[in-house]
Amino acid sequence: MSSSSSTSLYLTNPHLTRHTSSPSTTRLSSLPSTITLNRTPTPTTHLSQSHHLRHTAIHASVSAPPSTTTDSSLVEKSVNTIRFLAVDSVEKANSGHPGLPMGCAPMGHVLYDEVMRYNPKNPFWFNRDRFVLSAGHGCMLQYALLHLAGYDSVKVEDLKQFRQWESRTPGHPENFETPGIEVTTGPLGQGIANAVGLALAEKHLAARFNKPDNEIIDHYTYCILGDGCQMEGIANEACSLAGHWGLGKLIAFYDDNHISIDGDTEIAFTESVEKRFEGLGWHVIWVKNGNTGFDEIRAAIKEAKAVKDRPTLIKFTTTIGYGSPNKSNSYSVHGSALGAKEVDATRNNLGWPYEPFHVPEDVKKHWSRHIREGAALESEWNAKFADYEKKYKEEAAVLKSIISGDLPAGWEKALPTYTPEIPADATRNLSQQNLNALANVLPGLIGGSADLASSNMTLLKKFGDFQSDSPAERNVRFGVREHGMGAICNGIALHSRGLIPYCATFFVFTDYMRGAIRLSALSEAGVIYVMTHDSIGLGEDGPTHQPIEHLASFRAMPNILMLRPADGNETAGAYKVAVLNRKRPSILALSRQKLPNLAGTSIEGVEKGGYIVSDNSTGNKPDVILIGTGSELEIAYKAGEDLRKEGKAVRVVSFVSWELFDEQSQAYKESVLPTAVTARVSIEAGSTFGWEKIVGSKGKAIGIDRFGASAPAGTIYKEFGITKEAVIAAAKELI
Amino acid sequence: MSSSSSTSLYLTNPHLTRHTSSPSTTRLSSLPSTITLNRTPTPTTHLSQSHHLRHTAIHASVSAPPSTTTDSSLVEKSVNTIRFLAVDSVEKANSGHPGLPMGCAPMGHVLYDEVMRYNPKNPFWFNRDRFVLSAGHGCMLQYALLHLAGYDSVKVEDLKQFRQWESRTPGHPENFETPGIEVTTGPLGQGIANAVGLALAEKHLAARFNKPDNEIIDHYTYCILGDGCQMEGIANEACSLAGHWGLGKLIAFYDDNHISIDGDTEIAFTESVEKRFEGLGWHVIWVKNGNTGFDEIRAAIKEAKAVKDRPTLIKFTTTIGYGSPNKSNSYSVHGSALGAKEVDATRNNLGWPYEPFHVPEDVKKHWSRHIREGAALESEWNAKFADYEKKYKEEAAVLKSIISGDLPAGWEKALPTYTPEIPADATRNLSQQNLNALANVLPGLIGGSADLASSNMTLLKKFGDFQSDSPAERNVRFGVREHGMGAICNGIALHSRGLIPYCATFFVFTDYMRGAIRLSALSEAGVIYVMTHDSIGLGEDGPTHQPIEHLASFRAMPNILMLRPADGNETAGAYKVAVLNRKRPSILALSRQKLPNLAGTSIEGVEKGGYIVSDNSTGNKPDVILIGTGSELEIAYKAGEDLRKEGKAVRVVSFVSWELFDEQSQAYKESVLPTAVTARVSIEAGSTFGWEKIVGSKGKAIGIDRFGASAPAGTIYKEFGITKEAVIAAAKELI
Repeated sequence: MSSSSSTSLYLTNPHLTRHTSSPSTTRLSSLPSTITLNRTPTPTTHLSQSHHLRHTAIHASVSAPPSTTTDSSLVEKSVNTIRFLAVDSVEKANSGHPGLPMGCAPMGHVLYDEVMRYNPKNPFWFNRDRFVLSAGHGCMLQYALLHLAGYDSVKVEDLKQFRQWESRTPGHPENFETPGIEVTTGPLGQGIANAVGLALAEKHLAARFNKPDNEIIDHYTYCILGDGCQMEGIANEACSLAGHWGLGKLIAFYDDNHISIDGDTEIAFTESVEKRFEGLGWHVIWVKNGNTGFDEIRAAIKEAKAVKDRPTLIKFTTTIGYGSPNKSNSYSVHGSALGAKEVDATRNNLGWPYEPFHVPEDVKKHWSRHIREGAALESEWNAKFADYEKKYKEEAAVLKSIISGDLPAGWEKALPTYTPEIPADATRNLSQQNLNALANVLPGLIGGSADLASSNMTLLKKFGDFQSDSPAERNVRFGVREHGMGAICNGIALHSRGLIPYCATFFVFTDYMRGAIRLSALSEAGVIYVMTHDSIGLGEDGPTHQPIEHLASFRAMPNILMLRPADGNETAGAYKVAVLNRKRPSILALSRQKLPNLAGTSIEGVEKGGYIVSDNSTGNKPDVILIGTGSELEIAYKAGEDLRKEGKAVRVVSFVSWELFDEQSQAYKESVLPTAVTARVSIEAGSTFGWEKIVGSKGKAIGIDRFGASAPAGTIYKEFGITKEAVIAAAKELI
Repeated sequence: MSSSSSTSLYLTNPHLTRHTSSPSTTRLSSLPSTITLNRTPTPTTHLSQSHHLRHTAIHASVSAPPSTTTDSSLVEKSVNTIRFLAVDSVEKANSGHPGLPMGCAPMGHVLYDEVMRYNPKNPFWFNRDRFVLSAGHGCMLQYALLHLAGYDSVKVEDLKQFRQWESRTPGHPENFETPGIEVTTGPLGQGIANAVGLALAEKHLAARFNKPDNEIIDHYTYCILGDGCQMEGIANEACSLAGHWGLGKLIAFYDDNHISIDGDTEIAFTESVEKRFEGLGWHVIWVKNGNTGFDEIRAAIKEAKAVKDRPTLIKFTTTIGYGSPNKSNSYSVHGSALGAKEVDATRNNLGWPYEPFHVPEDVKKHWSRHIREGAALESEWNAKFADYEKKYKEEAAVLKSIISGDLPAGWEKALPTYTPEIPADATRNLSQQNLNALANVLPGLIGGSADLASSNMTLLKKFGDFQSDSPAERNVRFGVREHGMGAICNGIALHSRGLIPYCATFFVFTDYMRGAIRLSALSEAGVIYVMTHDSIGLGEDGPTHQPIEHLASFRAMPNILMLRPADGNETAGAYKVAVLNRKRPSILALSRQKLPNLAGTSIEGVEKGGYIVSDNSTGNKPDVILIGTGSELEIAYKAGEDLRKEGKAVRVVSFVSWELFDEQSQAYKESVLPTAVTARVSIEAGSTFGWEKIVGSKGKAIGIDRFGASAPAGTIYKEFGITKEAVIAAAKELI
């Protein structure tokens, strides 16, 4: 879809004509009169020309003046170093993706050597520019760049261990393995959405903390994404929001190489990406020669930085596997080692006489400055922060806590507590009480809903909406974009340790955002997922909206906390756990319907995952143990009361988080669920899958192993047998 | 984003200037010279004007000549009937969404009364036009229309039972509850993607079966979608494909009412939808008066039909809750009953003197013709088919089987069988053998991969690619669009009973398409999900690509078959099951790595879900039962061999599908897993969650309860303890 956009506007001196700080004059819409001069399409060989609408190009295309770099041969050498570090690492692993690093080495070089501000000896320096490789399979590009830039995380030994057990150079970029990697990518489209979150965080914090005399927060977010990312829906969702929010410091590099795994992108991807992004409110630039047009690349980035009111997409037309004489520009170079013969041919073709993994001395020397320059950048910033601290003591303290992630002392005292006398309420409402209480004490709490704020009850009452003209506010309006929302929150969480993003939708729609939720768990992003309407209890909306298997599906996922609180105290406990777990995301499943505050529930109980709520047994020998979660704890509780009236010794257990219970000592577990007591009944308005672990082979799990139904909630509960009577009957069978 | 597109091209007689069958002249790109005359923006009050790029509108806007309808007051009365049937039903249920039906009643009326071809007495008539309400919450619109049109599924009693237990008018449209509903919608964005699948099916079948003298297949797909659908990434994915495929008979109505649940769409949705759709290759029309501009609506549909090489998006600017004096144009009318007072006010405002649920006689009489007209349409088509059958006997027979869903006799004989002598192979390769074998005998098999055809091994070798200029072919290239792919396949499956769509990606990326997969299960769409690279066995790509919790997550989902075959025979068995289960989707988890063909595996075994593969015990009393699935069955098998050498009586069981095993008789289950034998060891390279059900409290489940790692597959298996040695050690502990 790229080169078939057949007419373009060439600006021979973009610096004069386009680099203006006035938003109105940088708008593309001011240019059509020029564009219409160039309307006649030029010939093209693309397959789709006859079938698809090819609009007159109305994006700007940069054709820069000849290079002014003093030593362009060194640049070329550096770029080839990047290419061969990638080629050699993939070859040694006999596994990996050489194509993207070879094609994107020029833009990678310009970014890491000329544009980005970072300190290689402190990858966590707060005010660094962020870089995201959304096309994560091309990770050797980034590893090579980190290596050249002097990061300790990627030594030459690490490159030689590419894709090997316990190496710091895994098959896709993983933030938790390799300092210098900001987020975990690979599943396509996630990275660009993370980048939107990183840029949101920068804009938000800058708005809150910058002062006219001290812009203490000021960095860019750069992202490379490929055709694959562009096809993913999540990318469109996130980029629509980036345009809406006017994230001017987000600059995305679209590697338009026309090749995806199945071959030429023409077989499935003939849309006009430029036109779509213009529709999304982005500034769009096309660098036609992404392979060797270094000045074009530099000019495009300069132009992008000058456009401050909108994010910029720079489309780079590149050749995948550039330099490989027989495999470049084909899918065969995408995801396999070149093979010894083609590596030799590529060395010959690019004039590269060096042995594998060699970095020429002049290239090494050229890059070595980044260590001292990076240290200087951080020092300067530290001095700036010291000034800031002197003048703005209070703000500086808050900012420090957001940077460090240290929670304010005693923050948990803000959590509300509840007694049985307090009227029944939906846990989604109780959640809102907690969120608003926490907003008073947690400076990094920020979030919102996917267009269900009034149903998810997620508005922070003391704040306004985060919008392009009010970025200091903390209520984020994600629109109906669940997947993008989750990935944006991952970006926010991984921007600063003290940012605590939360996001919300109906629990069933975790299905739409599961890719992002899994990456929260894997990349240790402590996002809080506020998931309301958590069962058939939502009633009339019916089976499309009623989660059934979702609790089980998350209990099976590693490194995530699935919490289903039963009332006010348990909701507060769930928030306490969620806030404390900064490297493990939490999902709170919350009810639409009202639930009573039960005697015996507690924040401390929630922290243990499973605990006794009521009990009339002695010697750890109840006749029966009734186990419930969330809205069904009430049912278990009342069944227990009835059974006790019949003289039974009944223990009622809340099982709010299986993961937390699993982490308790054997002695504690035995004190709650004694091995000797096999008469156990569980009740939960969801799939019984997995409950055998808790109730044992002789116990009984009451649940729902079918889809839901559209009817008033009470009717469905009764028809599906999620009732006190069912618990009592099951208990009597077992006693 | 709608009315702020401030300049438009008014065509006073669209019939003369735009309704031409030549693609080149209907292209929007032919119009810019006209457009540039109108460049000056007109004033606008929209919030985003100052922050977002507002391009000169280059879509066509239809302002039609005055109505030529003979009785426009009857049309208005009919439209108000639709509105009040919706209002009254929601009011009686005290639950539901009146806003959309009130706003979309005009377009609904024109569609069902004037445009669409259907037979109310046979909702399954093959050549009917398909209608999808992607904004499924507005289902009362469709129920009211089905009621007026004479469908037996929606009598007035049904309307009065809206959202009640076991009614045929559930809270969102459900194809399995209500004949006349094509697909199940509600989760936003799914419907438009389903519609793309329905339109694909029509285009594909028309290309295969139509003859110059007999166009036996010829129908349209209409879809109403709202702002919510537009924000969802899945919609962009599917619409990008619709544009790529040139689905000219897909006409989507975008209800641009500027309101979503959280308020004005300006808070989160300020992109130019028109511009995005033009980028996606659609024809775009804007009906500015969607409330009362009936001739505009008619003209737009006529124009859309005339554009044959591209799908059309008609943006209708409407007022949500039209007619409600105090609640229209606000979120409060979106998802709640109006309340008695506002219902009265709306009755007054629209001059509606009738009691609830009343259909005025003249309206009733007007609509009554659809019963005879529908019958006539079907009769005509039947006659046409009789002609077709006479001339094209062979094609007619195939088409009949696609319509009826009857599988050809003996089709299952095409499935390959395997013996242990056949070299080891990856089940993804064995899957390809099966798919290609089935393609020879199943005329309705059609599908493809999300840009991983060469990894998923899904190409049908005897067919070419389904493309805009080769729609009779059967390899569908979905691009990297998993969610859209799944939903498109749901549309294909629900178009004709004999269409058997399959789709493919890496198993871990079911996370991206879970919303669609769940709807396959709920809406009884027998899609076959070919999910390869099903464990850590994929090796170096690492944890982002390695499924862990996915098997458990689907075993917990209702009405879906999760199959994990171990070798050639089991892969064939999995396909047999998948093809036979036309109302239950199947997921096949397939290996990247080679697996040996084991003695004792069989198609028949797979059909039982769990079965004995090898056994040296007698009297149903083995010392230990070793249980494996997929790639780990080999490990269990070899552990059994070793243990037998030590004199143990060992049974090895394949547990390829838990769901199918659950459906077997108690006696059969006991014959495989005797209650008395508690020494059981399972091994599966995935989460152990749920395995307690199979191995019991005393058994041992070997699995992976953490994320994977990037390394060669053999190394990860060893480091994670997924080994024969681990099975033997566990077995010895239990015996």
